Amino acid sequence: MDRSVRLSRLAQGMQPSPIRELFKYTQQKGMISFAGGLPAPAAFPVEAFAGCAEVLARDGKAVLQYGASEGYGPLREALLALMRGRLGREVRPEELLVTSGSQQGVDLLARVLLDPGDVVVVEAPTYPGTVHALRNVGARFAAVPCDGQGMQVELLPEVVARCERATGARPRLIYTIPDFSNPSGACLSLERRRRLLELAAELAIPLLEDDPYGCLRYAGEPLPTLKALAGDAPDVIYASSFSKVLAPGVRVAWTVADPQLTRATVLMRQGADLCTSTVSQALVAEYCRRGLVERHLAHVIATYSGKCRAMQESLARHLGAELATWTEPQGGFFYWLRLAHGSADDAFHRAVARGVAFVPGPAFYPGSDEQVGEALGGDEYARLCFTFADPAQIEEGCQRLAAALRQA
Amino acid sequence: MDRSVRLSRLAQGMQPSPIRELFKYTQQKGMISFAGGLPAPAAFPVEAFAGCAEVLARDGKAVLQYGASEGYGPLREALLALMRGRLGREVRPEELLVTSGSQQGVDLLARVLLDPGDVVVVEAPTYPGTVHALRNVGARFAAVPCDGQGMQVELLPEVVARCERATGARPRLIYTIPDFSNPSGACLSLERRRRLLELAAELAIPLLEDDPYGCLRYAGEPLPTLKALAGDAPDVIYASSFSKVLAPGVRVAWTVADPQLTRATVLMRQGADLCTSTVSQALVAEYCRRGLVERHLAHVIATYSGKCRAMQESLARHLGAELATWTEPQGGFFYWLRLAHGSADDAFHRAVARGVAFVPGPAFYPGSDEQVGEALGGDEYARLCFTFADPAQIEEGCQRLAAALRQA
Repeated sequence: MDRSVRLSRLAQGMQPSPIRELFKYTQQKGMISFAGGLPAPAAFPVEAFAGCAEVLARDGKAVLQYGASEGYGPLREALLALMRGRLGREVRPEELLVTSGSQQGVDLLARVLLDPGDVVVVEAPTYPGTVHALRNVGARFAAVPCDGQGMQVELLPEVVARCERATGARPRLIYTIPDFSNPSGACLSLERRRRLLELAAELAIPLLEDDPYGCLRYAGEPLPTLKALAGDAPDVIYASSFSKVLAPGVRVAWTVADPQLTRATVLMRQGADLCTSTVSQALVAEYCRRGLVERHLAHVIATYSGKCRAMQESLARHLGAELATWTEPQGGFFYWLRLAHGSADDAFHRAVARGVAFVPGPAFYPGSDEQVGEALGGDEYARLCFTFADPAQIEEGCQRLAAALRQA
Repeated sequence: MDRSVRLSRLAQGMQPSPIRELFKYTQQKGMISFAGGLPAPAAFPVEAFAGCAEVLARDGKAVLQYGASEGYGPLREALLALMRGRLGREVRPEELLVTSGSQQGVDLLARVLLDPGDVVVVEAPTYPGTVHALRNVGARFAAVPCDGQGMQVELLPEVVARCERATGARPRLIYTIPDFSNPSGACLSLERRRRLLELAAELAIPLLEDDPYGCLRYAGEPLPTLKALAGDAPDVIYASSFSKVLAPGVRVAWTVADPQLTRATVLMRQGADLCTSTVSQALVAEYCRRGLVERHLAHVIATYSGKCRAMQESLARHLGAELATWTEPQGGFFYWLRLAHGSADDAFHRAVARGVAFVPGPAFYPGSDEQVGEALGGDEYARLCFTFADPAQIEEGCQRLAAALRQA
């Protein structure tokens, strides 16, 4: 295949991330953006984080050198401590890998665990960044629909059976965001968590639990992570990140997985980017060492829970059931609206014309041509991020949105 | 294939980077290390770099947010200016991509350009990190031997022809480090540069020029990069990095490639790690903005050229032609010794027992089972890095090395 043919094939196959492409609309003057899943810049701990730069002078010679692929020592220590709470046990160092964002965690695991054509079970809707990473390794998708309680796990065996009928092979991985999923905002119930673990074990399919939002709970009781419920069962892989609780610009995240898989991931990673920026890791480690994570988390929860409430009130004020329905999330970043009529893509363009942006539902489903079994769509849904805008913008944005939806 | 079988297959297929595994020897007390290709920590601009952290307070809200996959604006500006000198023309923004180390540049390009089984032409010896990245995508290798002037480019057509006879397909990429190659230290002559470009164009094989050491010249006249000689021919891809001229811990590097390929690489990258740490990028951008790159480069050149000279004198003092031969490099990090007798792997163990470490030659050749055509080895060679140790250690280390070699 000559190069121009190959490149145009690539350009077709690798669509730009639809969400990132939408960002250009959010840059327009006067636009209120509920589109990007972005933390509010006003909530960034700019001063406290900049203060951590002391570490660059203090430990500069280590910080500026090549780092271990597994992660920078002091950060690994901080993460082992953080994980003790979240996973309810001591995590062994050989289970832990620091990654350049959770995106890289998913990418590396996909490259280790999957061959082209392998099928991954995702909840529908699901996070497009993960779909992108999995698509990059040639994966296909089987979709389990979600409701207000997250993945409808009782449907999993049938989805797996359909996949086996269609492809002759069992899916190789199940991907889920149990806490405050992106985009649905749903929190998987405890009963479903237990059942998902049972079913995944029965079906012998490894499970990847993505937990970027788990600490951002604004209401209700915390639920144990899948990884915590699974004890040290080797087939549950955990991933989390500093993107939502500190800042995405640091690109520091981590995975906890059984040591054999972690070792394979490290070896893959040595050929991918060697290690995460030691500079970034050292700054985050210093931030942890100073006890700033807990303090900032309390601040972020207070800020975002207020915005979550504000959006609930604004939505309730302006959008009746004749326009859309939704469940108030108990945490995370997102409202997931089911539009009463019309297409979300159409509504998006009307909304942008009125100065408010969101992400239309189809962005959160794999393409129908890359799904096996029953393909799921999503054009009746809209994702609204409530963390980025301020409360006054949230009110005004919901009003504009209502007007745009009414126009259908 | 069940998971344990799959993982053990992975563990076999993905050997740990031999160089990184050697690092454990270099940690031993009293060991003089010529092994790792590491900058000297004493040469890191710790204070100046730490001073740049002012940018974290000044531009914190932008720095902590998600960044563009193409790179952070102010860093991209600095790189366009840097490239003007090195590539002898204005680089267009759409040609430029910031990557998380050159390692990631090679990884992403390999994922975009290669399918499993595709053959890449490498010079032999070559950089093992690149072999690792290419192996991760299932590439095989065809090797063109080097001499003191770098790749013996006149052998390229025959290597390509042998590959075509063996596999039925033409190699898909040529990878080279023309300036002060890792590990050979060789600098490709101007005549060979021109000829390589001609041959690559005739054969219609894209060329990847890796240029981490190009600015570290201690003797002789600078030669134009392949990318500069090629003008805006689309099939020459350029990669460079801040690892050697500032510090590897920042993990900031870049590629210059034709816009269509750059766009495809960005799309691949959105699924790989989204973007390079904006924190790292902003610190490096500030470092550039303050004019510290040029100043530090002058300091590094002065330091390393002294060490290069010191190693030349120590080697000449202790190792006669009955032990080893070498060419004094005009820049970069490495001496490449051809041992007069015995195996480099054996010599390595004797050397370590005497308290000096180097990297045995075979680390710089793809495995014989992954080479097509004539497989090249390298057990008569040793790579000595002269930048990490101080001059007194260099003298002592060369003395120990001579004793170890004499013992054969």
